Amino acid sequence: MENGSGKVLKPMDSEQLREYGHLMVDFIADYYKTIEDFPVLSQVQPGYLHKLLPDSAPDHPETLDQVLDDVRAKILPGVTHWQSPSFFAYYPSNSSVAGFLGEMLSAGLGIVGFSWVTSPAATELEMIVLDWVAKLLNLPEQFMSKGNGGGVIQGSASEAVLVVLIAARDKVLRSVGKNALEKLVVYSSDQTHSALQKACQIAGIHPENCRVLTTDSSTNYALRPESLQEAVSRDLEAGLIPFFLCANVGTTSSTAVDPLAALGKIANSNGIWFHVDAAYAGSACICPEYRQYIDGVETADSFNMNAHKWFLTNFDCSLLWVKDQDSLTLALSTNPEFLKNKASQANLVVDYKDWQIPLGRRFRSLKLWMVLRLYGSETLKSYIRNHIKLAKEFEQLVSQDPNFEIVTPRIFALVCFRLVPVKDEEKKCNNRNRELLDAVNSSGKLFMSHTALSGKIVLRCAIGAPLTEEKHVKEAWKIIQEEASYLLHK
Amino acid sequence: MENGSGKVLKPMDSEQLREYGHLMVDFIADYYKTIEDFPVLSQVQPGYLHKLLPDSAPDHPETLDQVLDDVRAKILPGVTHWQSPSFFAYYPSNSSVAGFLGEMLSAGLGIVGFSWVTSPAATELEMIVLDWVAKLLNLPEQFMSKGNGGGVIQGSASEAVLVVLIAARDKVLRSVGKNALEKLVVYSSDQTHSALQKACQIAGIHPENCRVLTTDSSTNYALRPESLQEAVSRDLEAGLIPFFLCANVGTTSSTAVDPLAALGKIANSNGIWFHVDAAYAGSACICPEYRQYIDGVETADSFNMNAHKWFLTNFDCSLLWVKDQDSLTLALSTNPEFLKNKASQANLVVDYKDWQIPLGRRFRSLKLWMVLRLYGSETLKSYIRNHIKLAKEFEQLVSQDPNFEIVTPRIFALVCFRLVPVKDEEKKCNNRNRELLDAVNSSGKLFMSHTALSGKIVLRCAIGAPLTEEKHVKEAWKIIQEEASYLLHK
Repeated sequence: MENGSGKVLKPMDSEQLREYGHLMVDFIADYYKTIEDFPVLSQVQPGYLHKLLPDSAPDHPETLDQVLDDVRAKILPGVTHWQSPSFFAYYPSNSSVAGFLGEMLSAGLGIVGFSWVTSPAATELEMIVLDWVAKLLNLPEQFMSKGNGGGVIQGSASEAVLVVLIAARDKVLRSVGKNALEKLVVYSSDQTHSALQKACQIAGIHPENCRVLTTDSSTNYALRPESLQEAVSRDLEAGLIPFFLCANVGTTSSTAVDPLAALGKIANSNGIWFHVDAAYAGSACICPEYRQYIDGVETADSFNMNAHKWFLTNFDCSLLWVKDQDSLTLALSTNPEFLKNKASQANLVVDYKDWQIPLGRRFRSLKLWMVLRLYGSETLKSYIRNHIKLAKEFEQLVSQDPNFEIVTPRIFALVCFRLVPVKDEEKKCNNRNRELLDAVNSSGKLFMSHTALSGKIVLRCAIGAPLTEEKHVKEAWKIIQEEASYLLHK
Repeated sequence: MENGSGKVLKPMDSEQLREYGHLMVDFIADYYKTIEDFPVLSQVQPGYLHKLLPDSAPDHPETLDQVLDDVRAKILPGVTHWQSPSFFAYYPSNSSVAGFLGEMLSAGLGIVGFSWVTSPAATELEMIVLDWVAKLLNLPEQFMSKGNGGGVIQGSASEAVLVVLIAARDKVLRSVGKNALEKLVVYSSDQTHSALQKACQIAGIHPENCRVLTTDSSTNYALRPESLQEAVSRDLEAGLIPFFLCANVGTTSSTAVDPLAALGKIANSNGIWFHVDAAYAGSACICPEYRQYIDGVETADSFNMNAHKWFLTNFDCSLLWVKDQDSLTLALSTNPEFLKNKASQANLVVDYKDWQIPLGRRFRSLKLWMVLRLYGSETLKSYIRNHIKLAKEFEQLVSQDPNFEIVTPRIFALVCFRLVPVKDEEKKCNNRNRELLDAVNSSGKLFMSHTALSGKIVLRCAIGAPLTEEKHVKEAWKIIQEEASYLLHK
């Protein structure tokens, strides 16, 4: 099975892995060296790749050169470059040197750590580094692995909210009977990520029992405790069963921050599972000056932060802490004979398969461990502070331009802004802002995304890519202004 | 922020990535070079790592040398070496040169491909390579991406069966009303993976409506169509709603193969969603001589195979094909404003976020693409045939030893065997087989796992690691015999 280079690629061989691995390291390093040459948002059209690749797999081996040539010529044009310094869309998904090394090592060891016994180091390192990050965040002791609580790495914030929603659902149904599912009520604000809606769909919560409580600019889109209290009281009166509340620290749309202490008080007094989604902003809370935004977390039953957004840890690495691991494992564990082993049977160990949706799981704690050690917590704090400084500068640039307005005050490194309405025509203004966004994104020089707040289309500039510097932020603003002036004078 | 080597590690820098990336490639290549020096099953005790690592993250950077020293001294002893040539437990989880390179490239590009627009290449390459593998498996046209069907990479077979169970559940409830959840019935054999039980727990199917149909050695633990038909008829008479059947091709315990055509006929005639779990054995079905085992797949609604088990594609890469993508997306899609984009709104593209549990997803199709191209389908077929040949040899060695018996005939590369009962004392025989397994595994020279079939404890030798050669299989049998003779003469 010649592959044209005279050498047969074995399934696994240490020296071929070495040789090809070095070639791939150089390919990836060169990619980062030239990343600013690419349009940030891919400019290809739907179906582009089908025309460029054969419609079946080759019978015989091809060479790595052939494949990498195709990556350059056919794959990279179809990539939206999340690691570009001019990527300001959604939220960042950091790839760092340390995170990349940890992902390499995980892929290299190739272990599957569903139970303690299938690689004790994988489970124990995860417990340890989740305790490390809990300490950096000053989370309550009950979230640490010593007691009945603990931390676990999930694949995404969607899986984090789903597993705790199921734990909460089954905890209630065990006491009131499973036919009461139709009475269970979930509460969140209208700013909560769609992951909660999806989790409710999966867990069978009736759509009419998902209370999406209205917020507005008066609270910068934070959930007012009064509206939660009113909704809970109404439902109790109607004989329904309030059982789950998802609060947000740093919503996707505008980094709104819900008042955790006040909400937690209501949740705790009504036996409602209180989950805190700090997927984006949780990273900033390792900085003392931002820790205030999770004050009240001590009243929460679970807390989630994505280290794969803004904590230099390559996707996927969503950190979930719970105070009561039993409710999680009661809902998610199965105990088939072929997975039974002495350590698990003796209840001496954690089997993370029972804390998550899938069975198999990668050695993801390696990359978090390497990020924490190769950078240190002080470097991580200054990394986050630097992005917030850049966002402050961008916010000032926007505020100085009368064509634009800041729609909601910036807290972290996301700036929400828009072209102001001309002669108060909101509908036209929304269209104009959509046009501006399209023009900016199709220039290829930067990529932003949008949201809607109180019916206004809002442009979001989320600063958080590891390579982003001041010059990229200034250049972005220059392009936005140019496209805006062209649009306004069209 | 010195890190002792005089150099500050930046969040991302192409030349530091190059320098450190090369060091990590060598570390991983050296690991494979010395992998046979490690005990296959880690011999550490619970809690070992807590004593070896500090209880909080460092404030300041440490060097890669310090971290890699700790990997050698503290992590590797706690690793169970899934890539060892003497790893015969569970099922294999292949790490290959090509798979490793693909995972590196995915981590390097660091994209998040939840919608087509967030990296068109990620979605389109996944559609293309899932079509490639569907062709290699000779799956029906309806599973291909041209029509309303298509393929998607899930993280695990657990997520694959969960998403189709939810699609099937919601499809039925849309027609009979959501309060009929308590009438929905799921069917499977008693050999079906615990992933189905977990999926039913998550989806809220009532435990008493999960029909786990008995199998026995008379059918080599395959599900008899008659027992499915009887169960379905009984439930229809009782006014229940049969809605989901999970059949197996290559069960975890003993590679039992259910008769898909006969079961499919019953499912189709009763409007039951028919899912086929070929997580392990699906890979073998690219070989014409094994394709027979998925005859009848044309009657299935969904088909799942783990490329990360025995198809040289690093975990995680579970391939799911469905005939009707709409039922999947209807159950799993959400459409928040901040994710809206032209291509999705115009229905021109696939947004894989609506085919899975999480929102975010890695560029996993790269590693499957690279495995298919760098090895070619013929190499993959011979790779699988070689493991089956080795398993045949192991089976013959076992059959020649009167102390042992083959418990159920081998089909693929898993051999199910045990020490025979002495004077027909089954209970003691089970304990003796457990003791043998413990002795073999604590020798560190190989790692096997077990199962139970008809109350008998059975040792499973699953041959499938990329580095496994004939000498490893012969050596394994030698050790098993030595430990057995010691045990029998104790």
